[in-house]
Amino acid sequence: MPLEPTAAERIGASFTRQAFMRHLGATLGHVAPGEVEILMPLRPELTQQTGSLHAGATTAIADSACGYAALTLMPAGSEVVSVEFKVNLLAPATGAHAVARARVLRAGRTLTVCRATVVTVGTTGEETAVLEMQATMMAVPLERPAR
Amino acid sequence: MPLEPTAAERIGASFTRQAFMRHLGATLGHVAPGEVEILMPLRPELTQQTGSLHAGATTAIADSACGYAALTLMPAGSEVVSVEFKVNLLAPATGAHAVARARVLRAGRTLTVCRATVVTVGTTGEETAVLEMQATMMAVPLERPAR
Amino acid sequence: MPLEPTAAERIGASFTRQAFMRHLGATLGHVAPGEVEILMPLRPELTQQTGSLHAGATTAIADSACGYAALTLMPAGSEVVSVEFKVNLLAPATGAHAVARARVLRAGRTLTVCRATVVTVGTTGEETAVLEMQATMMAVPLERPAR
Amino acid sequence: MPLEPTAAERIGASFTRQAFMRHLGATLGHVAPGEVEILMPLRPELTQQTGSLHAGATTAIADSACGYAALTLMPAGSEVVSVEFKVNLLAPATGAHAVARARVLRAGRTLTVCRATVVTVGTTGEETAVLEMQATMMAVPLERPAR
Repeated sequence: MPLEPTAAERIGASFTRQAFMRHLGATLGHVAPGEVEILMPLRPELTQQTGSLHAGATTAIADSACGYAALTLMPAGSEVVSVEFKVNLLAPATGAHAVARARVLRAGRTLTVCRATVVTVGTTGEETAVLEMQATMMAVPLERPAR
Repeated sequence: MPLEPTAAERIGASFTRQAFMRHLGATLGHVAPGEVEILMPLRPELTQQTGSLHAGATTAIADSACGYAALTLMPAGSEVVSVEFKVNLLAPATGAHAVARARVLRAGRTLTVCRATVVTVGTTGEETAVLEMQATMMAVPLERPAR
Repeated sequence: MPLEPTAAERIGASFTRQAFMRHLGATLGHVAPGEVEILMPLRPELTQQTGSLHAGATTAIADSACGYAALTLMPAGSEVVSVEFKVNLLAPATGAHAVARARVLRAGRTLTVCRATVVTVGTTGEETAVLEMQATMMAVPLERPAR
Repeated sequence: MPLEPTAAERIGASFTRQAFMRHLGATLGHVAPGEVEILMPLRPELTQQTGSLHAGATTAIADSACGYAALTLMPAGSEVVSVEFKVNLLAPATGAHAVARARVLRAGRTLTVCRATVVTVGTTGEETAVLEMQATMMAVPLERPAR
Protein backbone atom coordinates (compact mmCIF):
# COMPACT_ATOMS: atom_id res chain seq x y z
CA MET A 1 0.00 0.00 0.00
CA PRO A 2 1.60 3.29 -1.04
CA LEU A 3 1.72 6.00 1.58
CA GLU A 4 -0.74 8.70 0.57
CA PRO A 5 1.32 11.83 -0.14
CA THR A 6 -0.30 13.84 2.60
CA ALA A 7 0.59 11.33 5.33
CA ALA A 8 4.36 11.90 5.04
CA GLU A 9 3.71 15.63 4.89
CA ARG A 10 1.39 15.49 7.87
CA ILE A 11 4.00 13.59 9.89
CA GLY A 12 6.83 15.88 8.84
CA ALA A 13 4.77 18.90 9.84
CA SER A 14 3.77 17.40 13.17
CA PHE A 15 7.36 16.34 13.93
CA THR A 16 8.55 19.88 13.29
CA ARG A 17 6.10 21.12 15.92
CA GLN A 18 7.50 18.67 18.52
CA ALA A 19 9.86 21.04 20.30
CA PHE A 20 11.05 18.18 22.50
CA MET A 21 12.37 16.21 19.50
CA ARG A 22 14.43 19.28 18.57
CA HIS A 23 15.65 19.58 22.17
CA LEU A 24 16.87 15.97 21.92
CA GLY A 25 18.51 16.60 18.54
CA ALA A 26 16.24 13.95 17.01
CA THR A 27 15.33 13.85 13.33
CA LEU A 28 12.72 12.00 11.34
CA GLY A 29 14.05 9.12 9.23
CA HIS A 30 12.23 6.57 7.09
CA VAL A 31 8.43 6.99 6.89
CA ALA A 32 6.23 4.34 5.26
CA PRO A 33 2.70 3.06 5.89
CA GLY A 34 2.80 1.66 9.42
CA GLU A 35 6.54 2.27 9.85
CA VAL A 36 8.53 5.25 11.14
CA GLU A 37 12.16 5.75 12.12
CA ILE A 38 13.59 8.51 14.34
CA LEU A 39 17.32 9.15 14.72
CA MET A 40 19.13 10.76 17.64
CA PRO A 41 22.87 11.39 18.00
CA LEU A 42 24.30 10.45 21.39
CA ARG A 43 25.16 13.82 22.85
CA PRO A 44 26.54 14.38 26.38
CA GLU A 45 23.42 16.24 27.53
CA LEU A 46 21.29 13.13 26.93
CA THR A 47 23.24 10.85 29.27
CA GLN A 48 22.59 9.52 32.73
CA GLN A 49 25.08 9.05 35.56
CA THR A 50 26.69 6.01 33.89
CA GLY A 51 27.50 7.86 30.66
CA SER A 52 24.97 6.00 28.51
CA LEU A 53 21.78 7.52 27.10
CA HIS A 54 19.08 8.12 29.70
CA ALA A 55 16.13 5.78 29.26
CA GLY A 56 13.90 8.84 29.09
CA ALA A 57 15.63 9.96 25.91
CA THR A 58 15.47 6.59 24.16
CA THR A 59 11.89 6.15 25.34
CA ALA A 60 10.96 9.56 23.93
CA ILE A 61 12.05 8.70 20.40
CA ALA A 62 10.45 5.25 20.62
CA ASP A 63 7.17 6.83 21.76
CA SER A 64 7.20 9.43 18.98
CA ALA A 65 8.11 6.79 16.40
CA CYS A 66 5.18 4.63 17.54
CA GLY A 67 2.83 7.60 17.45
CA TYR A 68 3.82 8.55 13.93
CA ALA A 69 3.77 4.95 12.71
CA ALA A 70 0.19 4.78 13.98
CA LEU A 71 -0.63 8.13 12.38
CA THR A 72 0.43 6.90 8.93
CA LEU A 73 -2.58 4.55 8.98
CA MET A 74 -5.10 6.93 10.53
CA PRO A 75 -7.57 8.94 8.44
CA ALA A 76 -6.62 12.49 7.48
CA GLY A 77 -7.85 14.93 10.09
CA SER A 78 -6.60 12.77 12.95
CA GLU A 79 -4.07 13.59 15.58
CA VAL A 80 -2.48 10.84 17.68
CA VAL A 81 -2.00 10.64 21.44
CA SER A 82 -0.11 8.02 23.43
CA VAL A 83 -2.35 5.94 25.67
CA GLU A 84 0.34 3.82 27.31
CA PHE A 85 3.65 2.13 26.62
CA LYS A 86 5.96 -0.36 28.22
CA VAL A 87 9.68 -0.61 27.68
CA ASN A 88 12.26 -3.22 28.50
CA LEU A 89 15.81 -1.93 28.62
CA LEU A 90 18.15 -4.51 27.13
CA ALA A 91 21.64 -3.00 27.33
CA PRO A 92 23.39 0.29 28.14
CA ALA A 93 22.75 2.75 25.29
CA THR A 94 26.20 3.77 24.16
CA GLY A 95 27.48 4.41 20.61
CA ALA A 96 27.46 7.21 18.07
CA HIS A 97 23.70 7.53 17.64
CA ALA A 98 20.40 5.82 18.35
CA VAL A 99 17.63 4.82 15.97
CA ALA A 100 14.05 4.10 17.02
CA ARG A 101 12.19 1.86 14.56
CA ALA A 102 8.45 1.56 15.09
CA ARG A 103 5.84 -0.44 13.29
CA VAL A 104 2.12 -1.00 13.68
CA LEU A 105 1.04 -4.42 14.95
CA ARG A 106 -2.68 -3.75 14.69
CA ALA A 107 -4.51 -0.67 13.50
CA GLY A 108 -8.02 -0.39 14.92
CA ARG A 109 -10.66 2.22 14.47
CA THR A 110 -9.85 3.93 17.78
CA LEU A 111 -6.71 2.24 19.08
CA THR A 112 -3.51 1.21 17.34
CA VAL A 113 -0.97 -1.17 18.87
CA CYS A 114 2.68 -0.56 17.94
CA ARG A 115 6.08 -1.96 18.69
CA ALA A 116 9.40 -0.15 18.57
CA THR A 117 13.00 -1.20 18.93
CA VAL A 118 15.75 1.30 19.71
CA VAL A 119 19.23 0.34 18.55
CA THR A 120 22.44 2.19 19.11
CA VAL A 121 24.88 2.31 16.23
CA GLY A 122 28.61 2.30 16.88
CA THR A 123 31.22 4.20 14.89
CA THR A 124 31.78 1.15 12.69
CA GLY A 125 28.06 0.69 12.00
CA GLU A 126 27.34 -2.26 14.25
CA GLU A 127 23.93 -2.17 15.95
CA THR A 128 22.96 -3.06 19.51
CA ALA A 129 19.32 -3.37 20.56
CA VAL A 130 18.90 -1.33 23.74
CA LEU A 131 15.13 -0.90 24.19
CA GLU A 132 11.94 -2.71 23.23
CA MET A 133 8.62 -0.88 23.46
CA GLN A 134 5.04 -2.13 23.17
CA ALA A 135 2.57 0.74 22.98
CA THR A 136 -1.05 1.78 22.44
CA MET A 137 -1.86 4.90 20.43
CA MET A 138 -5.22 6.58 20.02
CA ALA A 139 -6.67 8.60 17.16
CA VAL A 140 -8.29 11.88 18.12
CA PRO A 141 -9.81 14.45 15.79
CA LEU A 142 -7.37 17.31 15.05
CA GLU A 143 -7.71 20.36 17.33
CA ARG A 144 -9.21 18.22 20.06
CA PRO A 145 -6.36 16.36 21.74
CA ALA A 146 -8.53 14.87 24.51
CA ARG A 147 -8.21 11.31 25.68
CA MET B 1 13.41 4.21 59.47
CA PRO B 2 15.69 7.23 59.18
CA LEU B 3 17.50 7.65 55.87
CA GLU B 4 21.15 6.96 56.47
CA PRO B 5 23.00 10.23 55.84
CA THR B 6 25.04 8.85 52.98
CA ALA B 7 21.94 7.77 50.99
CA ALA B 8 20.70 11.34 50.43
CA GLU B 9 24.26 12.37 49.60
CA ARG B 10 24.69 9.44 47.24
CA ILE B 11 21.47 10.29 45.44
CA GLY B 12 22.29 13.99 45.24
CA ALA B 13 25.69 13.17 43.79
CA SER B 14 24.27 10.70 41.28
CA PHE B 15 21.52 13.14 40.24
CA THR B 16 24.12 15.81 39.59
CA ARG B 17 25.87 13.46 37.20
CA GLN B 18 22.65 12.88 35.23
CA ALA B 19 23.25 15.36 32.45
CA PHE B 20 19.83 14.57 31.00
CA MET B 21 18.04 15.79 34.14
CA ARG B 22 19.88 19.12 33.75
CA HIS B 23 18.92 19.21 30.06
CA LEU B 24 15.27 18.86 31.14
CA GLY B 25 15.65 21.52 33.84
CA ALA B 26 14.71 18.93 36.46
CA THR B 27 15.72 19.17 40.11
CA LEU B 28 15.70 16.73 42.99
CA GLY B 29 12.96 17.31 45.58
CA HIS B 30 12.03 15.33 48.67
CA VAL B 31 14.21 12.29 49.41
CA ALA B 32 13.25 9.77 52.11
CA PRO B 33 13.69 6.01 52.53
CA GLY B 34 11.81 4.49 49.62
CA GLU B 35 10.50 7.84 48.35
CA VAL B 36 11.90 10.41 45.91
CA GLU B 37 10.44 13.45 44.18
CA ILE B 38 11.74 15.16 41.04
CA LEU B 39 10.46 18.54 39.82
CA MET B 40 10.48 19.90 36.28
CA PRO B 41 9.17 23.29 35.10
CA LEU B 42 7.09 23.14 31.94
CA ARG B 43 9.35 24.84 29.40
CA PRO B 44 8.53 25.22 25.69
CA GLU B 45 11.41 22.95 24.62
CA LEU B 46 9.85 20.02 26.48
CA THR B 47 6.56 20.08 24.61
CA GLN B 48 5.07 17.98 21.87
CA GLN B 49 2.99 19.10 18.91
CA THR B 50 -0.09 19.73 21.07
CA GLY B 51 1.70 22.14 23.43
CA SER B 52 1.67 19.81 26.43
CA LEU B 53 4.74 18.10 27.88
CA HIS B 54 6.08 15.25 25.75
CA ALA B 55 5.54 11.86 27.38
CA GLY B 56 9.27 11.26 27.03
CA ALA B 57 9.98 14.16 29.39
CA THR B 58 7.46 13.13 32.04
CA THR B 59 8.56 9.51 31.71
CA ALA B 60 12.20 10.53 32.20
CA ILE B 61 11.56 12.15 35.58
CA ALA B 62 9.30 9.29 36.66
CA ASP B 63 12.01 6.78 35.72
CA SER B 64 14.74 8.68 37.56
CA ALA B 65 12.50 9.14 40.60
CA CYS B 66 11.81 5.39 40.69
CA GLY B 67 15.50 4.61 40.32
CA TYR B 68 16.49 6.88 43.17
CA ALA B 69 13.62 5.72 45.39
CA ALA B 70 14.93 2.18 44.88
CA LEU B 71 18.50 3.33 45.55
CA THR B 72 17.55 4.73 48.98
CA LEU B 73 16.93 1.17 50.15
CA MET B 74 19.91 -0.50 48.44
CA PRO B 75 23.18 -1.20 50.24
CA ALA B 76 25.96 1.39 49.96
CA GLY B 77 28.19 0.57 47.02
CA SER B 78 25.21 -0.08 44.73
CA GLU B 79 24.25 1.67 41.56
CA VAL B 80 20.75 1.28 40.13
CA VAL B 81 19.67 0.52 36.56
CA SER B 82 16.17 0.48 35.13
CA VAL B 83 15.04 -2.96 34.02
CA GLU B 84 11.65 -1.98 32.63
CA PHE B 85 8.77 0.37 33.19
CA LYS B 86 5.24 0.88 31.99
CA VAL B 87 3.36 4.14 31.91
CA ASN B 88 -0.28 5.05 31.43
CA LEU B 89 -0.87 8.61 30.29
CA LEU B 90 -3.93 10.00 32.03
CA ALA B 91 -4.29 13.57 30.79
CA PRO B 92 -2.45 16.19 28.73
CA ALA B 93 0.49 17.49 30.79
CA THR B 94 -0.06 21.22 30.95
CA GLY B 95 0.52 23.62 33.86
CA ALA B 96 3.39 25.51 35.43
CA HIS B 97 5.54 22.53 36.40
CA ALA B 98 5.49 18.77 36.83
CA VAL B 99 6.37 16.66 39.86
CA ALA B 100 7.25 12.96 39.73
CA ARG B 101 6.64 11.16 43.03
CA ALA B 102 8.04 7.66 43.31
CA ARG B 103 7.89 5.10 46.06
CA VAL B 104 9.08 1.56 46.51
CA LEU B 105 6.42 -1.15 46.52
CA ARG B 106 8.80 -4.02 47.24
CA ALA B 107 12.54 -3.98 47.78
CA GLY B 108 14.16 -7.31 46.97
CA ARG B 109 17.75 -8.42 47.12
CA THR B 110 18.25 -7.96 43.36
CA LEU B 111 15.07 -6.31 42.08
CA THR B 112 12.99 -3.46 43.44
CA VAL B 113 9.47 -2.70 42.24
CA CYS B 114 8.44 0.97 42.28
CA ARG B 115 5.50 3.11 41.38
CA ALA B 116 5.51 6.75 40.37
CA THR B 117 2.84 9.33 39.69
CA VAL B 118 3.55 12.50 37.73
CA VAL B 119 1.28 15.43 38.47
CA THR B 120 1.27 18.80 36.83
CA VAL B 121 0.72 21.81 39.05
CA GLY B 122 -1.17 24.83 37.78
CA THR B 123 -0.40 28.44 38.63
CA THR B 124 -2.91 28.31 41.49
CA GLY B 125 -1.42 25.14 42.95
CA GLU B 126 -4.04 22.64 41.82
CA GLU B 127 -2.65 19.23 40.81
CA THR B 128 -3.60 16.97 37.90
CA ALA B 129 -2.31 13.40 37.65
CA VAL B 130 -0.93 12.94 34.14
CA LEU B 131 1.16 9.74 34.27
CA GLU B 132 1.26 6.53 36.29
CA MET B 133 4.37 4.35 36.13
CA GLN B 134 5.02 0.84 37.41
CA ALA B 135 8.71 -0.07 37.19
CA THR B 136 11.40 -2.60 38.05
CA MET B 137 14.83 -1.43 39.15
CA MET B 138 17.97 -3.53 39.66
CA ALA B 139 20.90 -3.10 42.02
CA VAL B 140 24.31 -3.45 40.43
CA PRO B 141 27.68 -3.00 42.11
CA LEU B 142 29.11 0.49 41.52
CA GLU B 143 31.48 0.81 38.56
CA ARG B 144 29.87 -2.13 36.88
CA PRO B 145 26.64 -0.97 35.25
CA ALA B 146 25.78 -4.33 33.67
CA ARG B 147 22.27 -5.74 33.58
CA MET C 1 -21.58 8.65 44.73
CA PRO C 2 -23.94 5.74 45.38
CA LEU C 3 -23.65 2.82 42.99
CA GLU C 4 -26.77 2.82 40.84
CA PRO C 5 -28.63 -0.40 41.67
CA THR C 6 -28.34 -1.74 38.17
CA ALA C 7 -24.54 -1.52 38.10
CA ALA C 8 -24.06 -4.16 40.81
CA GLU C 9 -26.71 -6.29 39.10
CA ARG C 10 -25.06 -5.81 35.72
CA ILE C 11 -21.69 -6.83 37.14
CA GLY C 12 -23.10 -9.82 38.99
CA ALA C 13 -24.84 -10.97 35.81
CA SER C 14 -21.73 -10.51 33.69
CA PHE C 15 -19.53 -12.28 36.27
CA THR C 16 -21.89 -15.24 36.24
CA ARG C 17 -21.42 -15.54 32.47
CA GLN C 18 -17.60 -15.63 32.85
CA ALA C 19 -17.14 -19.38 32.71
CA PHE C 20 -13.43 -18.95 33.32
CA MET C 21 -14.02 -17.35 36.74
CA ARG C 22 -16.06 -20.44 37.68
CA HIS C 23 -13.29 -22.69 36.37
CA LEU C 24 -10.88 -20.87 38.71
CA GLY C 25 -13.31 -21.11 41.64
CA ALA C 26 -13.38 -17.31 41.84
CA THR C 27 -16.25 -15.34 43.32
CA LEU C 28 -17.26 -11.71 43.26
CA GLY C 29 -16.62 -9.78 46.48
CA HIS C 30 -17.10 -6.12 47.32
CA VAL C 31 -18.55 -3.96 44.50
CA ALA C 32 -18.67 -0.15 44.80
CA PRO C 33 -18.37 2.72 42.33
CA GLY C 34 -14.90 2.36 40.85
CA GLU C 35 -13.95 -0.58 43.10
CA VAL C 36 -14.32 -4.34 42.73
CA GLU C 37 -12.92 -7.32 44.63
CA ILE C 38 -12.64 -10.90 43.39
CA LEU C 39 -11.75 -13.84 45.66
CA MET C 40 -10.13 -17.13 44.72
CA PRO C 41 -9.24 -20.04 47.02
CA LEU C 42 -5.80 -21.50 46.44
CA ARG C 43 -6.61 -24.89 44.97
CA PRO C 44 -4.00 -27.41 43.76
CA GLU C 45 -5.17 -27.16 40.12
CA LEU C 46 -4.24 -23.46 40.04
CA THR C 47 -0.58 -23.95 40.93
CA GLN C 48 2.60 -23.87 38.93
CA GLN C 49 5.63 -26.12 39.28
CA THR C 50 6.76 -24.45 42.52
CA GLY C 51 3.44 -25.04 44.31
CA SER C 52 2.37 -21.40 44.39
CA LEU C 53 -0.48 -19.95 42.33
CA HIS C 54 0.30 -19.61 38.62
CA ALA C 55 0.65 -15.98 37.57
CA GLY C 56 -2.00 -16.65 34.93
CA ALA C 57 -4.56 -17.37 37.66
CA THR C 58 -3.76 -14.30 39.76
CA THR C 59 -3.60 -12.18 36.61
CA ALA C 60 -7.01 -13.45 35.53
CA ILE C 61 -8.77 -12.27 38.69
CA ALA C 62 -6.87 -8.95 38.63
CA ASP C 63 -7.93 -8.41 35.00
CA SER C 64 -11.57 -9.23 35.71
CA ALA C 65 -11.57 -7.03 38.82
CA CYS C 66 -10.18 -4.11 36.79
CA GLY C 67 -12.73 -4.67 34.06
CA TYR C 68 -15.65 -4.69 36.48
CA ALA C 69 -14.29 -1.72 38.46
CA ALA C 70 -14.23 0.18 35.15
CA LEU C 71 -17.72 -1.06 34.29
CA THR C 72 -19.19 0.39 37.51
CA LEU C 73 -18.49 3.87 36.12
CA MET C 74 -19.55 3.25 32.52
CA PRO C 75 -23.01 4.14 31.21
CA ALA C 76 -25.66 1.45 31.19
CA GLY C 77 -25.64 -0.41 27.90
CA SER C 78 -21.85 -0.72 27.94
CA GLU C 79 -19.73 -3.82 27.96
CA VAL C 80 -16.05 -3.65 28.89
CA VAL C 81 -13.04 -5.19 27.14
CA SER C 82 -9.43 -5.27 28.29
CA VAL C 83 -7.11 -3.23 26.10
CA GLU C 84 -3.86 -4.03 27.88
CA PHE C 85 -2.40 -4.69 31.30
CA LYS C 86 0.94 -4.97 32.95
CA VAL C 87 1.73 -6.95 36.07
CA ASN C 88 4.67 -7.05 38.42
CA LEU C 89 4.92 -10.21 40.48
CA LEU C 90 6.09 -9.36 43.99
CA ALA C 91 6.22 -12.65 45.88
CA PRO C 92 5.25 -16.32 45.50
CA ALA C 93 1.46 -16.61 45.80
CA THR C 94 0.91 -19.07 48.62
CA GLY C 95 -1.73 -19.02 51.37
CA ALA C 96 -5.33 -20.04 51.82
CA HIS C 97 -6.87 -17.77 49.22
CA ALA C 98 -6.17 -14.77 47.01
CA VAL C 99 -8.06 -11.49 46.72
CA ALA C 100 -7.81 -9.11 43.76
CA ARG C 101 -8.70 -5.51 44.65
CA ALA C 102 -9.15 -3.16 41.70
CA ARG C 103 -9.93 0.52 41.57
CA VAL C 104 -10.30 3.08 38.82
CA LEU C 105 -7.54 5.67 38.52
CA ARG C 106 -9.15 7.63 35.71
CA ALA C 107 -12.46 7.08 33.95
CA GLY C 108 -12.54 8.55 30.46
CA ARG C 109 -15.21 8.57 27.84
CA THR C 110 -13.64 5.69 25.92
CA LEU C 111 -10.79 4.43 28.07
CA THR C 112 -10.55 3.77 31.80
CA VAL C 113 -7.24 3.27 33.61
CA CYS C 114 -7.31 0.91 36.59
CA ARG C 115 -4.97 -0.52 39.13
CA ALA C 116 -5.27 -3.82 40.99
CA THR C 117 -3.39 -5.48 43.80
CA VAL C 118 -3.63 -9.21 44.46
CA VAL C 119 -2.92 -10.30 48.00
CA THR C 120 -2.80 -13.80 49.37
CA VAL C 121 -4.31 -14.39 52.77
CA GLY C 122 -2.82 -16.95 55.13
CA THR C 123 -4.75 -19.17 57.51
CA THR C 124 -4.28 -16.62 60.30
CA GLY C 125 -5.52 -13.73 58.16
CA GLU C 126 -2.23 -12.04 57.37
CA GLU C 127 -1.98 -10.59 53.86
CA THR C 128 0.93 -10.64 51.40
CA ALA C 129 0.89 -8.53 48.24
CA VAL C 130 1.81 -10.82 45.36
CA LEU C 131 0.85 -8.92 42.18
CA GLU C 132 0.41 -5.32 41.08
CA MET C 133 -1.47 -4.57 37.84
CA GLN C 134 -1.87 -1.36 35.86
CA ALA C 135 -4.47 -1.74 33.12
CA THR C 136 -6.50 -0.01 30.42
CA MET C 137 -10.15 -0.93 29.87
CA MET C 138 -12.42 0.15 27.04
CA ALA C 139 -16.16 0.70 26.93
CA VAL C 140 -17.94 -0.90 24.01
CA PRO C 141 -21.68 -0.92 23.32
CA LEU C 142 -23.34 -4.14 24.52
CA GLU C 143 -23.71 -6.87 21.89
CA ARG C 144 -20.78 -5.49 19.96
CA PRO C 145 -17.60 -6.57 21.73
CA ALA C 146 -15.22 -5.14 19.09
CA ARG C 147 -12.03 -3.29 19.94
CA MET D 1 22.94 -24.07 18.58
CA PRO D 2 21.44 -27.47 19.30
CA LEU D 3 19.28 -27.73 22.38
CA GLU D 4 21.14 -29.77 24.97
CA PRO D 5 19.12 -32.94 25.50
CA THR D 6 18.46 -32.24 29.15
CA ALA D 7 16.86 -28.84 28.48
CA ALA D 8 13.88 -30.31 26.62
CA GLU D 9 13.60 -32.96 29.32
CA ARG D 10 13.83 -30.36 32.06
CA ILE D 11 11.10 -28.29 30.44
CA GLY D 12 8.86 -31.27 29.83
CA ALA D 13 9.25 -32.34 33.45
CA SER D 14 8.57 -28.83 34.76
CA PHE D 15 5.55 -28.41 32.48
CA THR D 16 4.10 -31.67 33.79
CA ARG D 17 4.30 -30.26 37.32
CA GLN D 18 2.34 -27.13 36.31
CA ALA D 19 -1.09 -28.22 37.48
CA PHE D 20 -2.58 -25.01 36.11
CA MET D 21 -1.53 -25.87 32.54
CA ARG D 22 -3.39 -29.17 32.91
CA HIS D 23 -6.41 -27.32 34.32
CA LEU D 24 -6.39 -25.18 31.15
CA GLY D 25 -5.99 -28.23 28.90
CA ALA D 26 -2.70 -26.79 27.62
CA THR D 27 0.08 -28.88 26.16
CA LEU D 28 3.70 -28.24 25.35
CA GLY D 29 4.49 -27.85 21.64
CA HIS D 30 7.73 -27.00 19.86
CA VAL D 31 10.77 -26.53 22.14
CA ALA D 32 14.06 -25.15 20.78
CA PRO D 33 16.84 -22.99 22.21
CA GLY D 34 15.16 -19.71 23.08
CA GLU D 35 11.78 -20.75 21.64
CA VAL D 36 8.77 -22.52 23.16
CA GLU D 37 5.20 -23.10 21.99
CA ILE D 38 2.19 -23.98 24.16
CA LEU D 39 -1.17 -25.08 22.72
CA MET D 40 -4.60 -24.76 24.29
CA PRO D 41 -7.95 -25.86 22.83
CA LEU D 42 -10.73 -23.32 23.18
CA ARG D 43 -13.02 -24.99 25.69
CA PRO D 44 -16.19 -23.43 27.11
CA GLU D 45 -14.78 -23.26 30.65
CA LEU D 46 -12.01 -20.91 29.47
CA THR D 47 -14.30 -18.21 28.13
CA GLN D 48 -15.40 -14.85 29.41
CA GLN D 49 -18.83 -13.26 29.20
CA THR D 50 -18.49 -12.55 25.46
CA GLY D 51 -17.77 -16.19 24.54
CA SER D 52 -14.14 -15.63 23.61
CA LEU D 53 -11.17 -16.89 25.62
CA HIS D 54 -10.58 -14.98 28.87
CA ALA D 55 -7.42 -12.88 28.74
CA GLY D 56 -6.27 -14.67 31.87
CA ALA D 57 -6.17 -17.97 29.99
CA THR D 58 -4.28 -16.64 26.98
CA THR D 59 -1.96 -14.70 29.28
CA ALA D 60 -1.25 -17.85 31.29
CA ILE D 61 0.03 -19.80 28.29
CA ALA D 62 2.00 -16.78 27.04
CA ASP D 63 3.63 -16.40 30.46
CA SER D 64 4.52 -20.10 30.70
CA ALA D 65 5.84 -20.11 27.13
CA CYS D 66 8.07 -17.11 27.93
CA GLY D 67 9.29 -18.74 31.11
CA TYR D 68 10.22 -21.97 29.36
CA ALA D 69 11.78 -20.15 26.41
CA ALA D 70 13.99 -18.36 28.94
CA LEU D 71 14.72 -21.62 30.74
CA THR D 72 16.08 -23.24 27.56
CA LEU D 73 19.00 -20.80 27.71
CA MET D 74 19.61 -20.91 31.46
CA PRO D 75 22.25 -23.14 33.06
CA ALA D 76 21.19 -26.55 34.34
CA GLY D 77 20.15 -26.32 37.97
CA SER D 78 18.10 -23.21 37.35
CA GLU D 79 14.42 -22.66 37.85
CA VAL D 80 12.66 -19.67 36.27
CA VAL D 81 10.24 -17.19 37.84
CA SER D 82 8.25 -14.45 36.11
CA VAL D 83 9.31 -10.96 37.17
CA GLU D 84 6.76 -9.01 35.13
CA PHE D 85 4.88 -9.02 31.86
CA LYS D 86 2.75 -6.72 29.79
CA VAL D 87 0.13 -7.78 27.31
CA ASN D 88 -1.77 -5.99 24.59
CA LEU D 89 -4.99 -7.68 23.54
CA LEU D 90 -5.45 -7.36 19.79
CA ALA D 91 -8.67 -9.14 18.97
CA PRO D 92 -11.32 -11.39 20.57
CA ALA D 93 -9.81 -14.86 21.05
CA THR D 94 -12.18 -17.16 19.21
CA GLY D 95 -11.40 -20.23 17.09
CA ALA D 96 -10.67 -23.90 17.61
CA HIS D 97 -7.51 -23.52 19.65
CA ALA D 98 -4.84 -21.02 20.73
CA VAL D 99 -1.07 -21.22 20.37
CA ALA D 100 1.39 -19.17 22.42
CA ARG D 101 4.75 -18.73 20.70
CA ALA D 102 7.53 -17.27 22.84
CA ARG D 103 11.08 -16.39 22.05
CA VAL D 104 13.98 -14.85 23.94
CA LEU D 105 14.95 -11.32 22.95
CA ARG D 106 17.91 -11.07 25.31
CA ALA D 107 19.31 -13.63 27.70
CA GLY D 108 21.25 -12.07 30.57
CA ARG D 109 23.00 -13.63 33.50
CA THR D 110 20.13 -12.89 35.88
CA LEU D 111 17.29 -11.57 33.72
CA THR D 112 15.94 -12.72 30.37
CA VAL D 113 13.63 -10.61 28.23
CA CYS D 114 11.08 -12.51 26.12
CA ARG D 115 8.28 -11.83 23.74
CA ALA D 116 5.25 -13.99 23.02
CA THR D 117 2.42 -13.87 20.53
CA VAL D 118 -0.79 -15.81 21.05
CA VAL D 119 -2.70 -16.70 17.91
CA THR D 120 -6.03 -18.42 17.63
CA VAL D 121 -6.43 -20.97 14.88
CA GLY D 122 -9.75 -21.42 13.14
CA THR D 123 -11.18 -24.69 11.91
CA THR D 124 -9.69 -24.09 8.46
CA GLY D 125 -6.24 -23.33 9.85
CA GLU D 126 -6.20 -19.55 9.51
CA GLU D 127 -4.44 -17.71 12.32
CA THR D 128 -5.42 -14.51 14.12
CA ALA D 129 -3.02 -12.74 16.48
CA VAL D 130 -4.91 -12.03 19.70
CA LEU D 131 -2.26 -11.15 22.30
CA GLU D 132 1.26 -9.72 22.36
CA MET D 133 3.37 -10.10 25.52
CA GLN D 134 6.67 -8.52 26.51
CA ALA D 135 8.09 -10.14 29.66
CA THR D 136 11.03 -10.38 32.04
CA MET D 137 12.04 -13.76 33.48
CA MET D 138 14.57 -14.44 36.23
CA ALA D 139 16.82 -17.42 36.86
CA VAL D 140 16.80 -18.77 40.40
CA PRO D 141 18.68 -21.78 41.72
CA LEU D 142 16.47 -24.90 41.84
CA GLU D 143 14.73 -25.58 45.17
CA ARG D 144 14.89 -21.90 46.06
CA PRO D 145 12.18 -20.14 44.10
CA ALA D 146 12.72 -16.72 45.75
CA ARG D 147 12.62 -13.46 43.85
